[in-house]
Amino acid sequence: MSALFKQITICGVGLIGGSLALAARQHHLAEKIVGLGRSEANLKIARDRGMLDLATRDPIAAAHGAELVMLATPIRLMPVTLRAMREALPHNAIVTDAGSVKQWVIDHLEPELGAGMALVGAHPIAGKETTGAAAADPALFVDQRVIITPSARSTPAAIEKIEMLWRRVGARVSRMAPDLHDLILSRASHLPQIVASTLAAALNNAQIGSEPAAAYGAGGLRDTTRLAASSADMWLDILVTNREAILGAAAEFRAVLDEFGSAIDNRDEVRMRAILEQGRAMRAKLP
Amino acid sequence: MSALFKQITICGVGLIGGSLALAARQHHLAEKIVGLGRSEANLKIARDRGMLDLATRDPIAAAHGAELVMLATPIRLMPVTLRAMREALPHNAIVTDAGSVKQWVIDHLEPELGAGMALVGAHPIAGKETTGAAAADPALFVDQRVIITPSARSTPAAIEKIEMLWRRVGARVSRMAPDLHDLILSRASHLPQIVASTLAAALNNAQIGSEPAAAYGAGGLRDTTRLAASSADMWLDILVTNREAILGAAAEFRAVLDEFGSAIDNRDEVRMRAILEQGRAMRAKLP
Repeated sequence: MSALFKQITICGVGLIGGSLALAARQHHLAEKIVGLGRSEANLKIARDRGMLDLATRDPIAAAHGAELVMLATPIRLMPVTLRAMREALPHNAIVTDAGSVKQWVIDHLEPELGAGMALVGAHPIAGKETTGAAAADPALFVDQRVIITPSARSTPAAIEKIEMLWRRVGARVSRMAPDLHDLILSRASHLPQIVASTLAAALNNAQIGSEPAAAYGAGGLRDTTRLAASSADMWLDILVTNREAILGAAAEFRAVLDEFGSAIDNRDEVRMRAILEQGRAMRAKLP
Repeated sequence: MSALFKQITICGVGLIGGSLALAARQHHLAEKIVGLGRSEANLKIARDRGMLDLATRDPIAAAHGAELVMLATPIRLMPVTLRAMREALPHNAIVTDAGSVKQWVIDHLEPELGAGMALVGAHPIAGKETTGAAAADPALFVDQRVIITPSARSTPAAIEKIEMLWRRVGARVSRMAPDLHDLILSRASHLPQIVASTLAAALNNAQIGSEPAAAYGAGGLRDTTRLAASSADMWLDILVTNREAILGAAAEFRAVLDEFGSAIDNRDEVRMRAILEQGRAMRAKLP
Protein backbone atom coordinates (compact mmCIF):
# COMPACT_ATOMS: atom_id res chain seq x y z
CA MET A 1 0.00 0.00 0.00
CA SER A 2 1.33 3.45 -0.84
CA ALA A 3 1.36 6.03 1.93
CA LEU A 4 -1.94 7.86 2.46
CA PHE A 5 -0.14 11.20 2.91
CA LYS A 6 3.18 12.60 1.76
CA GLN A 7 3.50 14.46 5.04
CA ILE A 8 1.51 14.65 8.24
CA THR A 9 2.35 17.47 10.63
CA ILE A 10 1.13 16.67 14.12
CA CYS A 11 0.72 19.70 16.36
CA GLY A 12 0.98 18.64 20.00
CA VAL A 13 3.02 15.47 20.49
CA GLY A 14 1.25 14.30 23.64
CA LEU A 15 -0.66 11.11 24.33
CA ILE A 16 -2.97 11.45 21.32
CA GLY A 17 -0.54 13.13 18.86
CA GLY A 18 2.33 10.88 19.85
CA SER A 19 0.21 7.73 19.65
CA LEU A 20 -1.00 8.76 16.19
CA ALA A 21 2.61 9.40 15.08
CA LEU A 22 3.63 5.90 16.24
CA ALA A 23 0.57 4.28 14.64
CA ALA A 24 1.06 6.22 11.37
CA ARG A 25 4.67 5.03 11.30
CA GLN A 26 3.69 1.43 12.00
CA HIS A 27 1.02 1.39 9.28
CA HIS A 28 3.04 3.44 6.75
CA LEU A 29 0.41 6.15 6.52
CA ALA A 30 2.82 8.99 5.70
CA GLU A 31 6.17 9.36 3.95
CA LYS A 32 7.15 11.99 6.46
CA ILE A 33 5.88 12.73 9.98
CA VAL A 34 6.61 16.13 11.48
CA GLY A 35 5.87 17.08 15.09
CA LEU A 36 5.31 20.61 16.37
CA GLY A 37 5.70 20.96 20.13
CA ARG A 38 6.06 23.57 22.85
CA SER A 39 8.37 21.77 25.27
CA GLU A 40 11.86 20.76 24.17
CA ALA A 41 11.90 18.02 26.82
CA ASN A 42 8.78 16.38 25.39
CA LEU A 43 10.04 16.72 21.80
CA LYS A 44 13.26 14.99 22.85
CA ILE A 45 11.24 12.03 24.12
CA ALA A 46 9.35 11.94 20.81
CA ARG A 47 12.65 12.04 18.91
CA ASP A 48 14.20 9.36 21.11
CA ARG A 49 11.22 7.08 20.55
CA GLY A 50 11.70 7.51 16.78
CA MET A 51 8.18 8.74 16.18
CA LEU A 52 9.07 11.81 14.11
CA ASP A 53 11.17 12.67 11.06
CA LEU A 54 11.33 16.25 12.25
CA ALA A 55 10.54 17.55 15.75
CA THR A 56 10.37 21.32 16.02
CA ARG A 57 9.03 24.20 18.07
CA ASP A 58 8.86 26.42 14.96
CA PRO A 59 5.36 26.55 13.44
CA ILE A 60 6.66 27.74 10.05
CA ALA A 61 9.14 24.86 9.80
CA ALA A 62 6.37 22.45 10.81
CA ALA A 63 3.96 23.89 8.22
CA HIS A 64 6.18 23.43 5.15
CA GLY A 65 4.96 20.53 3.06
CA ALA A 66 2.16 19.53 5.43
CA GLU A 67 -0.39 17.75 3.27
CA LEU A 68 -2.27 17.04 6.52
CA VAL A 69 -2.25 19.19 9.66
CA MET A 70 -3.39 17.24 12.73
CA LEU A 71 -4.16 19.56 15.63
CA ALA A 72 -3.72 17.56 18.82
CA THR A 73 -3.05 20.44 21.22
CA PRO A 74 -5.38 21.52 24.01
CA ILE A 75 -8.53 22.85 22.34
CA ARG A 76 -8.04 26.58 22.81
CA LEU A 77 -4.52 26.43 21.38
CA MET A 78 -5.76 25.03 18.06
CA PRO A 79 -6.78 28.32 16.37
CA VAL A 80 -3.58 30.15 17.36
CA THR A 81 -1.46 27.19 16.32
CA LEU A 82 -3.07 27.06 12.89
CA ARG A 83 -2.74 30.84 12.50
CA ALA A 84 0.98 30.65 13.30
CA MET A 85 1.49 27.99 10.60
CA ARG A 86 -0.83 29.50 8.03
CA GLU A 87 1.57 31.40 5.71
CA ALA A 88 3.79 28.35 5.15
CA LEU A 89 1.06 25.71 4.64
CA PRO A 90 0.41 24.21 1.19
CA HIS A 91 -2.58 26.01 -0.36
CA ASN A 92 -4.60 22.77 -0.43
CA ALA A 93 -3.66 21.38 2.99
CA ILE A 94 -6.24 19.34 4.89
CA VAL A 95 -6.71 20.38 8.49
CA THR A 96 -8.08 17.99 11.10
CA ASP A 97 -8.04 17.80 14.88
CA ALA A 98 -8.45 15.41 17.80
CA GLY A 99 -10.35 17.64 20.20
CA SER A 100 -13.06 16.46 22.62
CA VAL A 101 -15.34 19.36 21.63
CA LYS A 102 -16.29 19.86 18.00
CA GLN A 103 -18.54 22.88 17.35
CA TRP A 104 -16.22 25.37 19.03
CA VAL A 105 -13.20 23.94 17.23
CA ILE A 106 -14.88 24.15 13.83
CA ASP A 107 -16.19 27.67 14.47
CA HIS A 108 -12.73 28.86 15.47
CA LEU A 109 -10.68 27.04 12.83
CA GLU A 110 -12.79 27.91 9.77
CA PRO A 111 -11.72 31.61 9.77
CA GLU A 112 -8.06 30.50 9.73
CA LEU A 113 -8.35 28.34 6.60
CA GLY A 114 -6.95 29.38 3.22
CA ALA A 115 -9.42 29.30 0.31
CA GLY A 116 -8.20 25.94 -1.03
CA MET A 117 -7.97 24.19 2.31
CA ALA A 118 -10.41 21.72 3.85
CA LEU A 119 -11.32 21.10 7.49
CA VAL A 120 -12.51 17.77 8.92
CA GLY A 121 -13.22 17.69 12.66
CA ALA A 122 -12.58 14.39 14.41
CA HIS A 123 -12.65 13.05 17.96
CA PRO A 124 -10.81 9.87 18.86
CA ILE A 125 -12.54 8.68 22.06
CA ALA A 126 -9.44 7.18 23.57
CA GLY A 127 -7.53 8.38 26.54
CA LYS A 128 -5.67 7.55 29.67
CA GLU A 129 -4.85 9.66 32.71
CA THR A 130 -1.23 9.69 31.55
CA THR A 131 0.04 12.45 29.27
CA GLY A 132 2.96 13.36 27.02
CA ALA A 133 4.99 11.61 24.32
CA ALA A 134 6.28 9.18 26.96
CA ALA A 135 2.76 7.75 27.31
CA ALA A 136 2.18 7.38 23.54
CA ASP A 137 1.12 3.94 22.36
CA PRO A 138 0.66 2.89 18.71
CA ALA A 139 -2.24 0.62 19.75
CA LEU A 140 -4.13 3.39 21.60
CA PHE A 141 -6.84 3.66 18.94
CA VAL A 142 -7.39 -0.03 18.19
CA ASP A 143 -11.12 -0.80 18.50
CA GLN A 144 -11.80 2.67 19.90
CA ARG A 145 -14.43 4.99 18.49
CA VAL A 146 -13.44 7.96 16.33
CA ILE A 147 -16.27 10.37 15.52
CA ILE A 148 -15.90 12.42 12.35
CA THR A 149 -17.93 15.65 12.34
CA PRO A 150 -18.20 16.99 8.78
CA SER A 151 -19.03 20.68 8.44
CA ALA A 152 -19.21 23.49 5.84
CA ARG A 153 -15.51 23.39 4.94
CA SER A 154 -15.23 19.58 4.75
CA THR A 155 -14.84 18.23 1.20
CA PRO A 156 -15.92 14.65 0.46
CA ALA A 157 -12.35 13.77 -0.56
CA ALA A 158 -10.91 15.17 2.69
CA ILE A 159 -13.51 13.37 4.79
CA GLU A 160 -12.64 10.13 3.07
CA LYS A 161 -8.91 10.54 3.68
CA ILE A 162 -9.40 11.32 7.38
CA GLU A 163 -11.74 8.37 7.82
CA MET A 164 -9.19 6.15 6.07
CA LEU A 165 -6.43 7.43 8.35
CA TRP A 166 -8.35 6.46 11.49
CA ARG A 167 -9.49 3.12 10.08
CA ARG A 168 -5.92 2.22 9.20
CA VAL A 169 -4.80 2.71 12.82
CA GLY A 170 -7.53 0.34 13.98
CA ALA A 171 -10.34 2.69 15.06
CA ARG A 172 -14.11 2.27 14.58
CA VAL A 173 -15.13 5.35 12.61
CA SER A 174 -18.56 6.96 12.52
CA ARG A 175 -19.98 10.34 11.45
CA MET A 176 -22.05 12.80 13.42
CA ALA A 177 -23.06 16.47 13.30
CA PRO A 178 -20.75 18.61 15.49
CA ASP A 179 -23.52 19.93 17.78
CA LEU A 180 -24.94 16.44 18.26
CA HIS A 181 -21.44 15.19 19.11
CA ASP A 182 -21.04 17.90 21.74
CA LEU A 183 -24.38 17.10 23.38
CA ILE A 184 -23.67 13.36 23.49
CA LEU A 185 -20.13 13.75 24.81
CA SER A 186 -21.30 16.24 27.45
CA ARG A 187 -23.28 13.32 28.90
CA ALA A 188 -20.97 10.38 28.17
CA SER A 189 -17.63 11.99 28.99
CA HIS A 190 -17.73 15.56 30.31
CA LEU A 191 -20.34 14.86 33.01
CA PRO A 192 -18.44 11.85 34.44
CA GLN A 193 -15.35 14.08 34.66
CA ILE A 194 -17.28 16.76 36.56
CA VAL A 195 -18.78 14.17 38.90
CA ALA A 196 -15.42 12.49 39.59
CA SER A 197 -13.64 15.82 40.16
CA THR A 198 -16.45 17.08 42.40
CA LEU A 199 -16.41 13.91 44.52
CA ALA A 200 -12.62 13.97 44.82
CA ALA A 201 -12.59 17.70 45.66
CA ALA A 202 -15.34 17.23 48.28
CA LEU A 203 -13.33 14.40 49.88
CA ASN A 204 -9.99 16.19 49.62
CA ASN A 205 -10.46 17.96 52.91
CA ALA A 206 -13.13 15.72 54.47
CA GLN A 207 -11.71 15.17 57.93
CA ILE A 208 -13.78 13.31 60.55
CA GLY A 209 -12.22 13.81 63.97
CA SER A 210 -8.52 13.40 63.25
CA GLU A 211 -9.08 10.97 60.38
CA PRO A 212 -8.99 11.83 56.66
CA ALA A 213 -12.15 10.08 55.45
CA ALA A 214 -10.75 9.19 52.01
CA ALA A 215 -8.07 7.00 53.62
CA TYR A 216 -10.86 4.52 54.47
CA GLY A 217 -12.04 4.16 50.88
CA ALA A 218 -11.58 0.89 49.01
CA GLY A 219 -11.67 -0.01 45.31
CA GLY A 220 -15.04 1.67 44.81
CA LEU A 221 -13.74 5.07 45.85
CA ARG A 222 -10.67 4.56 43.68
CA ASP A 223 -12.80 3.73 40.60
CA THR A 224 -15.27 6.54 41.12
CA THR A 225 -12.57 9.21 41.45
CA ARG A 226 -10.11 7.85 38.86
CA LEU A 227 -10.93 10.55 36.28
CA ALA A 228 -10.13 13.28 38.83
CA ALA A 229 -6.43 12.62 38.15
CA SER A 230 -6.78 14.00 34.60
CA SER A 231 -5.03 17.14 33.39
CA ALA A 232 -6.73 20.30 34.69
CA ASP A 233 -5.53 22.30 31.66
CA MET A 234 -7.14 19.93 29.19
CA TRP A 235 -10.43 19.87 31.09
CA LEU A 236 -10.58 23.61 31.61
CA ASP A 237 -10.58 23.95 27.81
CA ILE A 238 -13.39 21.43 27.46
CA LEU A 239 -15.51 23.03 30.20
CA VAL A 240 -15.16 26.46 28.61
CA THR A 241 -15.71 25.42 24.98
CA ASN A 242 -18.66 23.08 25.59
CA ARG A 243 -20.21 25.20 28.34
CA GLU A 244 -23.90 25.09 27.43
CA ALA A 245 -24.15 21.35 26.76
CA ILE A 246 -22.23 20.65 29.97
CA LEU A 247 -24.50 22.90 32.03
CA GLY A 248 -27.45 20.95 30.64
CA ALA A 249 -25.87 17.62 31.51
CA ALA A 250 -25.01 18.85 35.02
CA ALA A 251 -28.60 19.98 35.54
CA GLU A 252 -29.87 16.50 34.60
CA PHE A 253 -27.44 14.91 37.05
CA ARG A 254 -28.42 17.32 39.78
CA ALA A 255 -32.12 16.63 39.32
CA VAL A 256 -31.51 12.92 40.00
CA LEU A 257 -29.20 13.73 42.93
CA ASP A 258 -31.86 15.95 44.50
CA GLU A 259 -34.49 13.27 44.02
CA PHE A 260 -32.18 10.66 45.58
CA GLY A 261 -31.39 12.97 48.51
CA SER A 262 -35.03 13.71 49.13
CA ALA A 263 -35.91 10.00 48.97
CA ILE A 264 -33.21 9.25 51.59
CA ASP A 265 -34.38 12.16 53.74
CA ASN A 266 -38.02 11.01 53.56
CA ARG A 267 -37.15 7.32 54.02
CA ASP A 268 -38.91 6.70 50.70
CA GLU A 269 -37.56 3.23 49.93
CA VAL A 270 -39.58 2.87 46.74
CA ARG A 271 -37.87 5.94 45.20
CA MET A 272 -34.45 4.95 46.52
CA ARG A 273 -34.76 1.50 45.02
CA ALA A 274 -35.98 2.93 41.71
CA ILE A 275 -32.86 5.10 41.36
CA LEU A 276 -30.52 2.27 42.39
CA GLU A 277 -32.21 -0.02 39.86
CA GLN A 278 -32.02 2.60 37.07
CA GLY A 279 -28.29 2.82 37.76
CA ARG A 280 -27.98 -0.96 37.58
CA ALA A 281 -29.92 -0.99 34.31
CA MET A 282 -27.53 1.55 32.77
CA ARG A 283 -24.51 -0.53 33.79
CA ALA A 284 -26.08 -3.67 32.35
CA LYS A 285 -26.41 -1.93 28.97
CA LEU A 286 -22.82 -0.65 28.92
CA PRO A 287 -20.78 -2.51 26.30
CA MET B 1 -2.01 -23.62 66.55
CA SER B 2 -5.23 -24.75 68.19
CA ALA B 3 -8.46 -23.47 66.69
CA LEU B 4 -9.55 -20.02 67.89
CA PHE B 5 -13.18 -21.16 68.18
CA LYS B 6 -14.87 -24.51 68.69
CA GLN B 7 -17.67 -23.42 66.38
CA ILE B 8 -18.36 -20.40 64.23
CA THR B 9 -21.89 -19.98 62.90
CA ILE B 10 -21.94 -17.68 59.89
CA CYS B 11 -25.35 -16.17 59.13
CA GLY B 12 -25.50 -15.20 55.47
CA VAL B 13 -23.19 -17.26 53.27
CA GLY B 14 -22.67 -14.62 50.59
CA LEU B 15 -19.50 -12.94 49.39
CA ILE B 16 -18.37 -11.86 52.88
CA GLY B 17 -19.74 -14.79 54.90
CA GLY B 18 -18.58 -17.35 52.35
CA SER B 19 -15.14 -15.81 52.05
CA LEU B 20 -14.77 -15.83 55.82
CA ALA B 21 -15.85 -19.49 55.93
CA LEU B 22 -13.20 -20.40 53.34
CA ALA B 23 -10.52 -18.32 55.08
CA ALA B 24 -11.43 -19.75 58.51
CA ARG B 25 -11.13 -23.24 57.06
CA GLN B 26 -7.79 -22.46 55.43
CA HIS B 27 -6.32 -21.00 58.61
CA HIS B 28 -7.91 -23.58 60.99
CA LEU B 29 -9.76 -20.93 62.98
CA ALA B 30 -12.66 -23.15 64.01
CA GLU B 31 -13.20 -26.83 64.67
CA LYS B 32 -16.65 -26.55 63.11
CA ILE B 33 -18.11 -24.02 60.67
CA VAL B 34 -21.88 -23.77 60.36
CA GLY B 35 -23.69 -21.71 57.76
CA LEU B 36 -27.21 -20.31 58.08
CA GLY B 37 -28.78 -19.29 54.76
CA ARG B 38 -32.09 -18.35 53.22
CA SER B 39 -31.68 -19.82 49.74
CA GLU B 40 -31.21 -23.57 49.29
CA ALA B 41 -29.47 -22.94 45.95
CA ASN B 42 -26.83 -20.76 47.56
CA LEU B 43 -26.34 -23.18 50.46
CA LYS B 44 -25.79 -25.95 47.93
CA ILE B 45 -22.98 -23.94 46.35
CA ALA B 46 -21.47 -23.39 49.80
CA ARG B 47 -21.73 -27.12 50.53
CA ASP B 48 -20.27 -28.06 47.13
CA ARG B 49 -17.33 -25.74 47.71
CA GLY B 50 -16.69 -27.51 51.03
CA MET B 51 -16.82 -24.34 53.07
CA LEU B 52 -19.25 -25.59 55.74
CA ASP B 53 -19.59 -28.54 58.11
CA LEU B 54 -23.30 -27.85 58.30
CA ALA B 55 -25.39 -25.73 55.94
CA THR B 56 -28.91 -25.06 57.12
CA ARG B 57 -31.91 -22.76 56.77
CA ASP B 58 -32.95 -23.48 60.36
CA PRO B 59 -31.83 -20.76 62.82
CA ILE B 60 -32.19 -23.09 65.83
CA ALA B 61 -30.02 -25.80 64.26
CA ALA B 62 -27.47 -23.12 63.34
CA ALA B 63 -27.47 -21.67 66.85
CA HIS B 64 -26.61 -24.87 68.72
CA GLY B 65 -23.00 -24.81 69.89
CA ALA B 66 -22.17 -21.46 68.27
CA GLU B 67 -19.29 -20.09 70.29
CA LEU B 68 -19.19 -17.25 67.74
CA VAL B 69 -22.14 -15.91 65.73
CA MET B 70 -21.00 -13.93 62.68
CA LEU B 71 -23.88 -11.92 61.18
CA ALA B 72 -23.08 -11.39 57.51
CA THR B 73 -26.63 -10.85 56.25
CA PRO B 74 -27.96 -7.54 54.88
CA ILE B 75 -27.97 -5.09 57.79
CA ARG B 76 -31.67 -5.00 58.57
CA LEU B 77 -31.88 -8.78 58.74
CA MET B 78 -29.31 -8.97 61.53
CA PRO B 79 -31.61 -8.30 64.53
CA VAL B 80 -34.34 -10.70 63.35
CA THR B 81 -31.74 -13.36 62.56
CA LEU B 82 -30.21 -13.12 66.02
CA ARG B 83 -33.67 -13.16 67.63
CA ALA B 84 -34.59 -16.34 65.74
CA MET B 85 -31.42 -18.06 67.01
CA ARG B 86 -31.51 -16.70 70.54
CA GLU B 87 -33.11 -19.53 72.52
CA ALA B 88 -30.61 -22.13 71.26
CA LEU B 89 -27.41 -20.08 71.56
CA PRO B 90 -24.82 -20.90 74.23
CA HIS B 91 -25.31 -18.49 77.17
CA ASN B 92 -21.85 -17.01 76.66
CA ALA B 93 -21.81 -16.77 72.86
CA ILE B 94 -19.93 -13.93 71.22
CA VAL B 95 -21.88 -12.06 68.55
CA THR B 96 -20.15 -10.10 65.80
CA ASP B 97 -21.13 -8.79 62.38
CA ALA B 98 -19.72 -7.62 59.06
CA GLY B 99 -22.08 -4.74 58.31
CA SER B 100 -21.10 -1.49 56.58
CA VAL B 101 -22.97 0.58 59.19
CA LYS B 102 -22.14 0.18 62.87
CA GLN B 103 -24.21 2.37 65.22
CA TRP B 104 -27.57 1.08 63.93
CA VAL B 105 -26.38 -2.52 64.11
CA ILE B 106 -25.13 -2.16 67.68
CA ASP B 107 -28.30 -0.33 68.79
CA HIS B 108 -30.50 -3.06 67.30
CA LEU B 109 -28.45 -6.10 68.34
CA GLU B 110 -27.87 -5.15 71.99
CA PRO B 111 -31.52 -5.76 73.03
CA GLU B 112 -31.31 -9.28 71.56
CA LEU B 113 -28.28 -10.37 73.62
CA GLY B 114 -28.54 -12.76 76.55
CA ALA B 115 -27.00 -11.55 79.82
CA GLY B 116 -23.76 -13.53 79.41
CA MET B 117 -23.24 -12.73 75.75
CA ALA B 118 -20.86 -10.18 74.24
CA LEU B 119 -21.19 -8.09 71.09
CA VAL B 120 -18.27 -6.82 68.98
CA GLY B 121 -19.18 -4.81 65.88
CA ALA B 122 -16.81 -5.15 62.93
CA HIS B 123 -16.63 -3.93 59.34
CA PRO B 124 -14.38 -5.65 56.83
CA ILE B 125 -13.86 -3.02 54.10
CA ALA B 126 -13.63 -5.52 51.29
CA GLY B 127 -16.08 -6.06 48.54
CA LYS B 128 -16.69 -6.76 44.90
CA GLU B 129 -19.77 -6.19 42.76
CA THR B 130 -20.26 -9.96 42.70
CA THR B 131 -22.40 -11.64 45.34
CA GLY B 132 -23.23 -15.07 46.76
CA ALA B 133 -21.24 -18.10 47.87
CA ALA B 134 -20.07 -18.62 44.30
CA ALA B 135 -18.06 -15.39 44.52
CA ALA B 136 -16.46 -16.25 47.87
CA ASP B 137 -12.67 -16.06 47.99
CA PRO B 138 -10.49 -17.08 50.96
CA ALA B 139 -8.05 -14.26 50.11
CA LEU B 140 -10.72 -11.55 50.05
CA PHE B 141 -9.56 -9.97 53.32
CA VAL B 142 -5.80 -10.14 52.81
CA ASP B 143 -4.33 -6.66 53.36
CA GLN B 144 -7.82 -5.15 53.60
CA ARG B 145 -8.94 -2.96 56.48
CA VAL B 146 -11.26 -4.34 59.15
CA ILE B 147 -12.60 -1.77 61.60
CA ILE B 148 -13.62 -3.03 65.04
CA THR B 149 -16.13 -0.80 66.84
CA PRO B 150 -16.23 -1.69 70.56
CA SER B 151 -19.36 -0.64 72.42
CA ALA B 152 -21.11 -1.12 75.80
CA ARG B 153 -21.58 -4.88 75.42
CA SER B 154 -18.06 -5.63 74.11
CA THR B 155 -15.83 -7.40 76.64
CA PRO B 156 -12.04 -7.04 76.35
CA ALA B 157 -11.74 -10.82 75.83
CA ALA B 158 -14.34 -10.84 73.05
CA ILE B 159 -12.73 -7.86 71.30
CA GLU B 160 -9.39 -9.64 71.41
CA LYS B 161 -10.81 -12.84 69.89
CA ILE B 162 -12.55 -10.96 67.06
CA GLU B 163 -9.43 -8.97 66.29
CA MET B 164 -7.41 -12.19 66.27
CA LEU B 165 -9.94 -13.78 63.88
CA TRP B 166 -9.54 -10.97 61.34
CA ARG B 167 -5.78 -10.78 61.72
CA ARG B 168 -5.48 -14.52 61.11
CA VAL B 169 -7.28 -14.20 57.75
CA GLY B 170 -4.83 -11.48 56.68
CA ALA B 171 -6.70 -8.25 57.43
CA ARG B 172 -5.32 -5.00 58.84
CA VAL B 173 -7.33 -4.43 62.00
CA SER B 174 -8.01 -1.09 63.71
CA ARG B 175 -10.49 0.20 66.31
CA MET B 176 -12.89 3.10 66.08
CA ALA B 177 -16.02 4.38 67.83
CA PRO B 178 -19.21 3.26 65.98
CA ASP B 179 -20.49 6.79 65.29
CA LEU B 180 -17.08 7.91 64.01
CA HIS B 181 -16.99 4.84 61.75
CA ASP B 182 -20.38 5.72 60.29
CA LEU B 183 -19.38 9.32 59.58
CA ILE B 184 -16.11 8.31 57.90
CA LEU B 185 -17.69 5.56 55.81
CA SER B 186 -20.53 7.86 54.75
CA ARG B 187 -17.82 9.91 53.00
CA ALA B 188 -15.40 7.20 51.88
CA SER B 189 -17.90 4.58 50.73
CA HIS B 190 -21.59 5.53 50.90
CA LEU B 191 -21.17 8.85 49.07
CA PRO B 192 -19.25 7.30 46.13
CA GLN B 193 -22.08 4.76 45.80
CA ILE B 194 -24.70 7.52 45.70
CA VAL B 195 -22.68 9.49 43.15
CA ALA B 196 -22.09 6.46 40.91
CA SER B 197 -25.74 5.37 41.06
CA THR B 198 -26.96 8.92 40.40
CA LEU B 199 -24.69 9.32 37.39
CA ALA B 200 -25.70 5.94 35.99
CA ALA B 201 -29.41 6.59 36.60
CA ALA B 202 -29.16 10.04 34.95
CA LEU B 203 -27.49 8.47 31.92
CA ASN B 204 -29.81 5.47 31.78
CA ASN B 205 -32.33 7.30 29.69
CA ALA B 206 -30.15 10.10 28.31
CA GLN B 207 -31.02 10.02 24.64
CA ILE B 208 -29.64 12.70 22.28
CA GLY B 209 -31.52 12.56 18.99
CA SER B 210 -31.75 8.82 18.35
CA GLU B 211 -28.49 8.04 20.14
CA PRO B 212 -28.17 6.67 23.70
CA ALA B 213 -25.47 8.98 25.08
CA ALA B 214 -23.90 6.35 27.35
CA ALA B 215 -22.97 4.22 24.33
CA TYR B 216 -20.29 6.83 23.53
CA GLY B 217 -18.59 6.60 26.91
CA ALA B 218 -15.10 5.14 27.22
CA GLY B 219 -13.11 3.78 30.17
CA GLY B 220 -13.77 6.89 32.24
CA LEU B 221 -17.52 6.41 32.18
CA ARG B 222 -17.08 2.74 32.97
CA ASP B 223 -14.89 3.49 36.03
CA THR B 224 -17.10 6.27 37.35
CA THR B 225 -20.27 4.16 37.20
CA ARG B 226 -18.78 0.80 38.24
CA LEU B 227 -20.31 0.90 41.74
CA ALA B 228 -23.78 1.36 40.25
CA ALA B 229 -23.80 -2.38 39.48
CA SER B 230 -23.91 -3.21 43.21
CA SER B 231 -26.84 -4.94 44.91
CA ALA B 232 -29.77 -2.57 45.42
CA ASP B 233 -30.97 -4.56 48.46
CA MET B 234 -27.66 -4.22 50.24
CA TRP B 235 -27.45 -0.49 49.54
CA LEU B 236 -31.03 0.23 50.51
CA ASP B 237 -30.19 -1.11 53.98
CA ILE B 238 -27.10 1.10 54.22
CA LEU B 239 -28.96 4.22 53.05
CA VAL B 240 -31.73 3.68 55.58
CA THR B 241 -29.53 2.75 58.56
CA ASN B 242 -26.88 5.47 58.08
CA ARG B 243 -29.33 8.13 56.89
CA GLU B 244 -28.12 11.19 58.78
CA ALA B 245 -24.42 10.78 58.08
CA ILE B 246 -25.18 10.10 54.42
CA LEU B 247 -27.37 13.18 54.11
CA GLY B 248 -24.48 15.20 55.53
CA ALA B 249 -22.01 13.70 53.05
CA ALA B 250 -24.42 14.33 50.16
CA ALA B 251 -24.82 17.95 51.23
CA GLU B 252 -21.04 18.43 51.16
CA PHE B 253 -20.86 16.91 47.68
CA ARG B 254 -23.71 19.07 46.45
CA ALA B 255 -22.09 22.25 47.75
CA VAL B 256 -19.01 21.55 45.61
CA LEU B 257 -21.18 20.57 42.64
CA ASP B 258 -23.12 23.82 42.87
CA GLU B 259 -19.90 25.80 43.12
CA PHE B 260 -18.48 23.96 40.09
CA GLY B 261 -21.67 24.55 38.10
CA SER B 262 -21.75 28.21 38.95
CA ALA B 263 -18.07 28.58 38.00
CA ILE B 264 -18.78 26.97 34.60
CA ASP B 265 -21.87 29.13 34.13
CA ASN B 266 -19.94 32.32 34.98
CA ARG B 267 -16.85 31.32 32.98
CA ASP B 268 -14.86 31.64 36.20
CA GLU B 269 -11.72 29.75 35.21
CA VAL B 270 -9.95 30.43 38.50
CA ARG B 271 -12.71 28.62 40.44
CA MET B 272 -12.98 25.82 37.88
CA ARG B 273 -9.25 25.19 38.05
CA ALA B 274 -9.30 25.27 41.85
CA ILE B 275 -11.89 22.48 41.99
CA LEU B 276 -10.10 20.38 39.34
CA GLU B 277 -6.83 20.79 41.25
CA GLN B 278 -8.47 19.89 44.60
CA GLY B 279 -9.69 16.70 42.93
CA ARG B 280 -6.21 15.95 41.62
CA ALA B 281 -4.76 16.54 45.08
CA MET B 282 -7.19 14.04 46.62
CA ARG B 283 -6.24 11.39 44.05
CA ALA B 284 -2.54 12.02 44.65
CA LYS B 285 -3.06 11.26 48.38
CA LEU B 286 -5.03 8.05 47.76
CA PRO B 287 -2.97 5.00 48.79
